Amino acid sequence: MPADIAGAIAALSHLEIDRKPASVKAKSRDFFWYSPVLKARMDHLQADFVVSPRSEAEVIEVLKVCYAHDVPVTTRGAGTGNYGQAMPLAGGCVLHMRHMAAVKEVHPGRVIVEPGCLLKDLDAHCKAHSGQEIRMFSSTWATATIGGFIAGGSGGVGSCRWGALRDLGNIIRLRVVTMEEQPRVLEFRGEELPRVSHAYGTNGIITEIEMPLAPAYDWVEMFVAFKDFMAAVEYARDLTDEAGILIKLATPIQAPIAHDYFQRVKPYVAPGDNLVALMVAPHSMDGFLTFHARRDGRIIYRSDDNDWAKNPGPVFEYGWNHTTLRALKVDPAITYLQVRFAGDDMLEKIRKVSAIFGDEVLQHLEAMKEGGRTMFASLPLIRFTTEARLDEIVHIHEDLGCMVFNPHRYTLEEGGRQTVDDRQLAFKRQADPKGLLNPGKMIAWDDPDWGYDRMYAYPGMTAAE
Amino acid sequence: MPADIAGAIAALSHLEIDRKPASVKAKSRDFFWYSPVLKARMDHLQADFVVSPRSEAEVIEVLKVCYAHDVPVTTRGAGTGNYGQAMPLAGGCVLHMRHMAAVKEVHPGRVIVEPGCLLKDLDAHCKAHSGQEIRMFSSTWATATIGGFIAGGSGGVGSCRWGALRDLGNIIRLRVVTMEEQPRVLEFRGEELPRVSHAYGTNGIITEIEMPLAPAYDWVEMFVAFKDFMAAVEYARDLTDEAGILIKLATPIQAPIAHDYFQRVKPYVAPGDNLVALMVAPHSMDGFLTFHARRDGRIIYRSDDNDWAKNPGPVFEYGWNHTTLRALKVDPAITYLQVRFAGDDMLEKIRKVSAIFGDEVLQHLEAMKEGGRTMFASLPLIRFTTEARLDEIVHIHEDLGCMVFNPHRYTLEEGGRQTVDDRQLAFKRQADPKGLLNPGKMIAWDDPDWGYDRMYAYPGMTAAE
Ligand SMILES: Cc1cc2nc3c(=O)[nH]c(=O)nc-3n(C[C@H](O)[C@H](O)[C@H](O)COP(=O)(O)OP(=O)(O)OC[C@H]3O[C@@H](n4cnc5c(N)ncnc54)[C@H](O)[C@@H]3O)c2cc1C
Ligand SMILES: Cc1cc2nc3c(=O)[nH]c(=O)nc-3n(C[C@H](O)[C@H](O)[C@H](O)COP(=O)(O)OP(=O)(O)OC[C@H]3O[C@@H](n4cnc5c(N)ncnc54)[C@H](O)[C@@H]3O)c2cc1C
Repeated sequence: MPADIAGAIAALSHLEIDRKPASVKAKSRDFFWYSPVLKARMDHLQADFVVSPRSEAEVIEVLKVCYAHDVPVTTRGAGTGNYGQAMPLAGGCVLHMRHMAAVKEVHPGRVIVEPGCLLKDLDAHCKAHSGQEIRMFSSTWATATIGGFIAGGSGGVGSCRWGALRDLGNIIRLRVVTMEEQPRVLEFRGEELPRVSHAYGTNGIITEIEMPLAPAYDWVEMFVAFKDFMAAVEYARDLTDEAGILIKLATPIQAPIAHDYFQRVKPYVAPGDNLVALMVAPHSMDGFLTFHARRDGRIIYRSDDNDWAKNPGPVFEYGWNHTTLRALKVDPAITYLQVRFAGDDMLEKIRKVSAIFGDEVLQHLEAMKEGGRTMFASLPLIRFTTEARLDEIVHIHEDLGCMVFNPHRYTLEEGGRQTVDDRQLAFKRQADPKGLLNPGKMIAWDDPDWGYDRMYAYPGMTAAE
Repeated sequence: MPADIAGAIAALSHLEIDRKPASVKAKSRDFFWYSPVLKARMDHLQADFVVSPRSEAEVIEVLKVCYAHDVPVTTRGAGTGNYGQAMPLAGGCVLHMRHMAAVKEVHPGRVIVEPGCLLKDLDAHCKAHSGQEIRMFSSTWATATIGGFIAGGSGGVGSCRWGALRDLGNIIRLRVVTMEEQPRVLEFRGEELPRVSHAYGTNGIITEIEMPLAPAYDWVEMFVAFKDFMAAVEYARDLTDEAGILIKLATPIQAPIAHDYFQRVKPYVAPGDNLVALMVAPHSMDGFLTFHARRDGRIIYRSDDNDWAKNPGPVFEYGWNHTTLRALKVDPAITYLQVRFAGDDMLEKIRKVSAIFGDEVLQHLEAMKEGGRTMFASLPLIRFTTEARLDEIVHIHEDLGCMVFNPHRYTLEEGGRQTVDDRQLAFKRQADPKGLLNPGKMIAWDDPDWGYDRMYAYPGMTAAE
């Protein structure tokens, strides 16, 4: 059935609805443009209207009405996702969660919060309440929502201690509304969580979140400079391996990234300086400085003690996908990849990749815990030339045994492990029988026999004018 | 020079001094009797007097006077050490720290405390102050002091998350008084800490301690039963590897230990039941139960939900050296070892050791973090027959590539890695030039050329009557 947009809008007219083309366009976009591949395909996309519910009851109403009128619904937190995750491929309704931002309860070790709460507001609330903060956050902490982080993110600042969002224990409970004739409200825990976490809102709308908390400290933020990149990598790995030194970030960044792209850092580094960005708990500084003194690095910045003319801001805003952002601002021809380096030979693989690509692929790694080991999530900067060369770079990585999560794809499968997540697919069958939630993002739903030999193109995508 | 005991006592008579033979004898003993080897050699030992200082100034006075009168000084926390650590081999003075027990300051992430504070009092104070607790404690939490833990212990409940006491960051600062003509007061941090931590008080008296803190939670304590011991071991290892599930204890205990030696657990287990004792943060219970449901184990006890007729008490009092204690109470012929299982083949080694010894050596393991990996500190129960056989058991372990820390020796070196700790020796030269601090415990001081081919026997030890 074709979408009855006018009918849906009429039925929802008592809610906060935005139909102004310019602002609807703005709220139909995310950071997809980091990828030249996605930029070429998604720039024209635009919803028909935006609705901003104020309660779970209003979410239910929106889903019910849109179901009845066959209108696609794409949920939006803050739209800081990178793969067009929050972009309405088939138009329809953008469900904007910004008004559902209340922190409901804080307890020792956990918080209950609405999805539209900004990560930074959540942390501020928990810190003021009882000296707590969330275990990990995406580097878009200042602008992103907790709901978007869970539905679209993977991990971030804190993952060097706590692992990824998907790891057991890093989400406690999700409350979810389905898109059926009569939407249901479900509560998920344990094995049920992966149904909707990192599912891009394709099979349910998260209306309440229970997350674990860790103690909030006045983290000491630092940059440590190294002449040799592999020395920086070993430093970050070994520091992450020190169980007694509490850290929240360990980010090796290859030269000349800091010099070329980090404007406020540039005066303090040479082109050949590799950096490690760090966040260390204040009471771990003694242990950290002892560790540090055994190594070659040079601390060039300490947030608690420096004479820099201009404050560089939070060091985590030089890590994770902020590294890419800073490079892009200086050189729009830059894009990035997402690569996993793990296992006993992980340093060897990093060394090989660096040797193969030289300046075409500059390394930027994030220390994480995975299966009890320290590994690196890499978000290397790529000097983009053609889509074909980008694909080649992906394949060279894969041939070396490195898993690539391709950020130049808008589907869950292609941005992940290129396989169907059966739990998400099965739950979509129940929760979104008409396939109206964020359509085009789950290949398994549209085309179960898809072979992944080329980039998937959602047939229902609104055509460019 | 021979010790002038009478002169020292006269000069210290304004302090709290105990000369009553029965109580001096009691305060000259620790838990050395766990070892039949040490029991045969140390049972007669006794100091000449006990002094209990009330301040650092009084500690300085004691050390100065005993220095002048050539009187040996052996420091005592609570005397729960296991290797005769706190026993005065050459008589003299026992320096009892019980009155120096103040918690001085608590800050986010750290505490400043006097050495004689009991671990449980320290935790109670920090919890009441700001919901914090020490990162790790010996299972003698209820009776041991923080000073004794640092000077004599190695790690314990919490080490599965934070590593050992010796790991960087697990002690922040130690304040130490030397035993010279004019005792000096020194402050140690970083690389200086190993001079006096785990030095048995052989080269300085700790008078103030700064330790890191972690958040205090109402840990859920559990016993999980397994038919297969290796399944229990894998369970404990894999749970410790889950970065998102916050635990404080993971202790595999081989059958039939629980049935034969844990009186209050016995009604709930069969002889063939292997146990894992656990402490899990309440907000990690969901993640834990998800992990658990993927495995074979059976939760037989939960501290927050059970119908046991008799409360088993804290589960950590079934782990670490409390396992040995409980076995010894039932069967005095039992003793123990301390073995390190680490590396990629650690499970294989555990399997081999079990196969070789059968019931003669029952496995009891403690999950710990070491160099970024999960490993096991083992405190197996040994059915003691002869000293020769005990040595043989040690050698069989060593031949398999397992490091043994022999608890049947009273010297630092033999209970450790059988090598001199140069930092401790060098500092003893400065801090204790007459060699009066806990004499006989550092072989390198007495006999630098010692070959470790047989058990060291301190020539200055008081003879049995
Ligand atoms: C500079 C930069 C740095 C970044 N760093 C990181 C990082 O460190 N780690 C990381 O994981 N990501 C990172 N990202 C990606 C992104 O910022 C995060 O995932 C962020 O947390 C998303 O939050 P958001 O509110 O902007 O979500 P959005 O972009 O609005 O949404 C993300 C996805 O979640 C869905 N969604 C949102 N709310 C709900 C809901 N209530 N119910 C169901 N579905 C919902 C959306 O439909 C969309 O598919 C980065 C992006 C940029 C641009
Ligand atoms: C049942 C049982 C379980 C145990 N479990 C553990 C465990 O889990 N982990 C562990 O590490 N140990 C364990 N132990 C050993 C011991 O209990 C701990 O190390 C404990 O923390 C020692 O504290 P204490 O106050 O009894 O010290 P003591 O036994 O009094 O002293 C220990 C050593 O420290 C020295 N010392 C004490 N205070 C000072 C000071 N202020 N300055 C300098 N030197 C000083 C003493 O001279 C002695 O050499 C266990 C022992 C038993 C009997």
